[in-house]
Amino acid sequence: MAGNSFGKLFTLTTYGESHGSALGGVIDGCPAGIDVDIESIQQELDRRRPGQSSIVTQRKEPDTVKFHSGIFEGKTTGTSIGFVIENTNQKSHDYSHIKDSYRPSHADYTYDKKYGIRDYRGGGRSSARETACRVVAGALAKQMLKDIKISAYVSGVGTMKLNKPYTELDLTQIESNIVRCPDQTMAKDMEAYIKEVRSKGDTVGGIVSCVIKNVPIGLGEPVFDKLHAELGKAMLSINAVKGFEYGSGFEGSTMYGSDHNDAFNNDGTTKTNFSGGIQGGISNGMDIYFNVAFKPVATLIQKYETIDKEGNTVEMQGKGRHDPCVVPRAVPIVEAMAALVLADYYLLNKLSKI
Amino acid sequence: MAGNSFGKLFTLTTYGESHGSALGGVIDGCPAGIDVDIESIQQELDRRRPGQSSIVTQRKEPDTVKFHSGIFEGKTTGTSIGFVIENTNQKSHDYSHIKDSYRPSHADYTYDKKYGIRDYRGGGRSSARETACRVVAGALAKQMLKDIKISAYVSGVGTMKLNKPYTELDLTQIESNIVRCPDQTMAKDMEAYIKEVRSKGDTVGGIVSCVIKNVPIGLGEPVFDKLHAELGKAMLSINAVKGFEYGSGFEGSTMYGSDHNDAFNNDGTTKTNFSGGIQGGISNGMDIYFNVAFKPVATLIQKYETIDKEGNTVEMQGKGRHDPCVVPRAVPIVEAMAALVLADYYLLNKLSKI
Amino acid sequence: MAGNSFGKLFTLTTYGESHGSALGGVIDGCPAGIDVDIESIQQELDRRRPGQSSIVTQRKEPDTVKFHSGIFEGKTTGTSIGFVIENTNQKSHDYSHIKDSYRPSHADYTYDKKYGIRDYRGGGRSSARETACRVVAGALAKQMLKDIKISAYVSGVGTMKLNKPYTELDLTQIESNIVRCPDQTMAKDMEAYIKEVRSKGDTVGGIVSCVIKNVPIGLGEPVFDKLHAELGKAMLSINAVKGFEYGSGFEGSTMYGSDHNDAFNNDGTTKTNFSGGIQGGISNGMDIYFNVAFKPVATLIQKYETIDKEGNTVEMQGKGRHDPCVVPRAVPIVEAMAALVLADYYLLNKLSKI
Amino acid sequence: MAGNSFGKLFTLTTYGESHGSALGGVIDGCPAGIDVDIESIQQELDRRRPGQSSIVTQRKEPDTVKFHSGIFEGKTTGTSIGFVIENTNQKSHDYSHIKDSYRPSHADYTYDKKYGIRDYRGGGRSSARETACRVVAGALAKQMLKDIKISAYVSGVGTMKLNKPYTELDLTQIESNIVRCPDQTMAKDMEAYIKEVRSKGDTVGGIVSCVIKNVPIGLGEPVFDKLHAELGKAMLSINAVKGFEYGSGFEGSTMYGSDHNDAFNNDGTTKTNFSGGIQGGISNGMDIYFNVAFKPVATLIQKYETIDKEGNTVEMQGKGRHDPCVVPRAVPIVEAMAALVLADYYLLNKLSKI
Repeated sequence: MAGNSFGKLFTLTTYGESHGSALGGVIDGCPAGIDVDIESIQQELDRRRPGQSSIVTQRKEPDTVKFHSGIFEGKTTGTSIGFVIENTNQKSHDYSHIKDSYRPSHADYTYDKKYGIRDYRGGGRSSARETACRVVAGALAKQMLKDIKISAYVSGVGTMKLNKPYTELDLTQIESNIVRCPDQTMAKDMEAYIKEVRSKGDTVGGIVSCVIKNVPIGLGEPVFDKLHAELGKAMLSINAVKGFEYGSGFEGSTMYGSDHNDAFNNDGTTKTNFSGGIQGGISNGMDIYFNVAFKPVATLIQKYETIDKEGNTVEMQGKGRHDPCVVPRAVPIVEAMAALVLADYYLLNKLSKI
Repeated sequence: MAGNSFGKLFTLTTYGESHGSALGGVIDGCPAGIDVDIESIQQELDRRRPGQSSIVTQRKEPDTVKFHSGIFEGKTTGTSIGFVIENTNQKSHDYSHIKDSYRPSHADYTYDKKYGIRDYRGGGRSSARETACRVVAGALAKQMLKDIKISAYVSGVGTMKLNKPYTELDLTQIESNIVRCPDQTMAKDMEAYIKEVRSKGDTVGGIVSCVIKNVPIGLGEPVFDKLHAELGKAMLSINAVKGFEYGSGFEGSTMYGSDHNDAFNNDGTTKTNFSGGIQGGISNGMDIYFNVAFKPVATLIQKYETIDKEGNTVEMQGKGRHDPCVVPRAVPIVEAMAALVLADYYLLNKLSKI
Repeated sequence: MAGNSFGKLFTLTTYGESHGSALGGVIDGCPAGIDVDIESIQQELDRRRPGQSSIVTQRKEPDTVKFHSGIFEGKTTGTSIGFVIENTNQKSHDYSHIKDSYRPSHADYTYDKKYGIRDYRGGGRSSARETACRVVAGALAKQMLKDIKISAYVSGVGTMKLNKPYTELDLTQIESNIVRCPDQTMAKDMEAYIKEVRSKGDTVGGIVSCVIKNVPIGLGEPVFDKLHAELGKAMLSINAVKGFEYGSGFEGSTMYGSDHNDAFNNDGTTKTNFSGGIQGGISNGMDIYFNVAFKPVATLIQKYETIDKEGNTVEMQGKGRHDPCVVPRAVPIVEAMAALVLADYYLLNKLSKI
Repeated sequence: MAGNSFGKLFTLTTYGESHGSALGGVIDGCPAGIDVDIESIQQELDRRRPGQSSIVTQRKEPDTVKFHSGIFEGKTTGTSIGFVIENTNQKSHDYSHIKDSYRPSHADYTYDKKYGIRDYRGGGRSSARETACRVVAGALAKQMLKDIKISAYVSGVGTMKLNKPYTELDLTQIESNIVRCPDQTMAKDMEAYIKEVRSKGDTVGGIVSCVIKNVPIGLGEPVFDKLHAELGKAMLSINAVKGFEYGSGFEGSTMYGSDHNDAFNNDGTTKTNFSGGIQGGISNGMDIYFNVAFKPVATLIQKYETIDKEGNTVEMQGKGRHDPCVVPRAVPIVEAMAALVLADYYLLNKLSKI
């Protein structure tokens, strides 16, 4: 099956290129009877929107979602939910400079080799613009999940790291600054850092962390579809992601079992949570938490050499309005993908017992 | 769809509990006409087998695979391939001590809550014994992939890390020691370390790294089924895995774009390979490499307190023949899962162009 | 997985209610490099369009398809193809008469019971208006299939049957009359019959037959996904279909093996074709042919009694602009579904051998 | 995805060739907590077994099923259920006569062309022997479905037809004769007819009808996965099936809407049931009933001419122990496939509403 669908039961299929007439998608498998708040879906889209602050791309794009089906009198009906986001910023750019050349660390070369053709306008399908559709579906999934609270935030920009466990952070403060880092002092530093990087025409990577609270026990489908395996895939499917770890993560690989095991309290909760809320691939009711590593954006506002289709060396000049650091805008995308996984596994878990 | 299948086109479905009568599986979607070397499949199983060396579990289990279908006169026929691994070591143990109790950081609690019932003998379905079936299928996938060379090795045991890029290692030396670390000095140290940990009844985590060479350009299915996203899921679905990173990984998130971008050579290869052989979710022909973090095994040969089904505190004593460190035996499992992903994506890529 | 997708590799996902703002869909898995003729896709839609002739519903709806993605410079790019058909005829009707009542032999009752809510405007999702999206995708599939020629036609209206094998018909004459029956005399009689039925406010069923020529040998995926099994499902998924038979069909069940077996010619073709071009679930290169039975449309322009949500008897009056007989407009839908199956199986068959 | 799996949530994957060492399968997605009666599963297998009566093949094969996993202390555990049926009757036959030749109306030719190789022993994978695995899984599905009662029976052998609606038959009498026709007089005639056909070395087709009672309202997944569409596919996937019709079926296509519509009673049941218990693709609680047409078995005990791989004419002689008419043994297979569909849709329907 082709790769533009995500989820087994709560399924999102997306389409759309960066500079096509519209992006859109279909959400299938959403149960009937969910109260839909369209406005809060649009708000999630606004959190991802270009031009929202001084540290993200200044491209103007309202990203307004329109639903065509599956919602009636304010509720989901159980039928497939189609939605469209028009591209209003389709200027007739001159793309001749990238049409026949491959930008380094972009998908130009691989798309061309794989498909024999590529929509070269703004990265085409490989553009992160596609994630707008994920945010729409994730926002709907959140409305289904109700009590489950998903909070992503920026915990690293370049070498600047928020070295505190999430339990010591005030997660209500994430949206109080444009970096989306819940530590205000760190946020200020990160903001200054990002601006400095941009002023050089450079970019920098970062880390998004995510915490999920109030997860019901039982989500996860052994043996291949363990909850963390699907979360990992979901995160790794986001543009620019290079790594995923949950619970004790890579650090956990350095520990002894006698330190790492999570002893039980008598109510079934655990005294520690190195497991990250998942044991044997199934949620145990404790908080789920994980980290997602993003590489630096490949588009630099600098002059550089690369090759064209024939393998000739050509000189190019990065231009346009690009993100110097992707993590502030990645926060709602990470949340959306987490919501899609949880919605899917919430439904799957309804089938565990007769 | 239930979680015991992996792959879209080259599909593995597995079954079997740790102490049931047999494990087995079905490989579906394997093209016809592949020459099958049963002996080399058995050799892969032997690399994973308990009792193979002094630093792994001493449990005796021959793990002999028997194929029932889909192979005729030495070739695959295009029909589904069923195989069985009998459990010969099914002693009538006394399981009363774990029947009603939940071992910490195992899947006892979550299976019981999810399904309302669990096969408590040796961990049941949550046992890593299940991965034997993955090794069988992965070994067949390797035979289909022919020129593609997958090499996994141990690069970390506890805090002991092999701090060399794979390009400085002699990957032909992986099997020359029982740790499966290609650096002989480090291997010796790791071996001693694992034995020390075991002598205390403790366990320790580790890292398996993997390098894939000779990958054709074009493997990967945007946007959700990016090649590294599926590799990540595959690895995270292995028991005890806590993290996955590819290419520059978590370290890449600290870098500047100007350092991280992989400049092209005129033949389409790149001068550096921070991308890890994958751009936009599609292989670019460079080496793929990634790291997989394993937590320490949860079963300690120590006395500890935990709870029973009613939430009462009970004392337990870990016993039996367990791995003090899982990574040496995880090496063939990581390779097998990588092979399954590549086989699947190799077939998917046949459909990219008309 | 939810039920709004069709196909494994060449996949169509649709959305849209009869009286919503738009219908649409996503075609995923279409290989790159196919020359797309948008105009001929629109022509297929026009063959299905309401108001096209005097024997179909007189509802006015232009049914113009707009593509948003996946096609670039006249070719498919290998990315997902999103399309939308706006509903221009969304009058603010008064639906109070059907809002709380269940029309007999419609899906009003079952949708309400299954989902607890239904979009009652014009049948909502259960309306055959949804099949417009199938025609779009099927038309694209036809362009991929090139030499394969799919010809559906009306072979029965009520008790009026075209008792000739397809080999005695001139299939180029199907579109030469509004019934879409290749026998001109029969077509005239059927047309008169349909008009007579409509004049009484009644409806009548019918049969659509289909012939597929130039099918490559090898399409079909044993054992569950036999080619005719998927064709059968495809046809039975069309609104109002009650039966499917291929090759010798129900008549074949009365025959002796000695009469039914298709003897080979020396070139691998067969002297007879009771098999209907499929043996063991796999195409053998002979013509595929099958019949599809449609029930009479449930909406009558008559007065009748039925029940409301509370089970009270209520009187209703059928009105509006409905098809007296669905088969003339079903012809392009049958072809579209056949094209979708063949496109999917054409791609699947690329994977049969290494 | 390859074609050896059936079902989305309650999934069966099968393997095995006619003359391989064993057949088997995996049932995945079966909920935990179902009481499993192994003996009654074996009884269903016995209903399908060769050699069970004087009118079926006299091949000796005990067809004993062994379960390897997923059942513990008499209950399903929610993990995948592996089972194996050993082939005990694998004589070292001489297959040289069919190795290089194509038998008419078998799958010899199409398998060879599709896969480039075929297991020619006894038809290999194309043999109806594979359906034994379906019966195992179907029998388990029946145990999950509890109150739902599925009754298949023979309603036609050649031109001999049981022209009574099921409502006039005593379905408890199906197993009282070896034909499995609930009308005892007709059963006797059919038995004599089958024996006569066999005595000539010929075969004959037939019809299996099926009635499903106590179906919950709401089973069915519009728009592509309508309940009858999946039932149709299930039946058409059985060896030798040429047609499927449900409710009014092909006859319904000749009717007027005013006769065909099923008027409601005040309790939501309908006065007539031309709909066959399904409206808009969703069960309405009325009886589901359908007919399945089987062609005559292709293997005749006669001398005939055919071609070899090089297209040369060769003379062959049918021999062995084959069914003269497949329908008596097809009855449990039809029931099994119906049970698999219902089990799957029963689980899917749990997800319709939040």
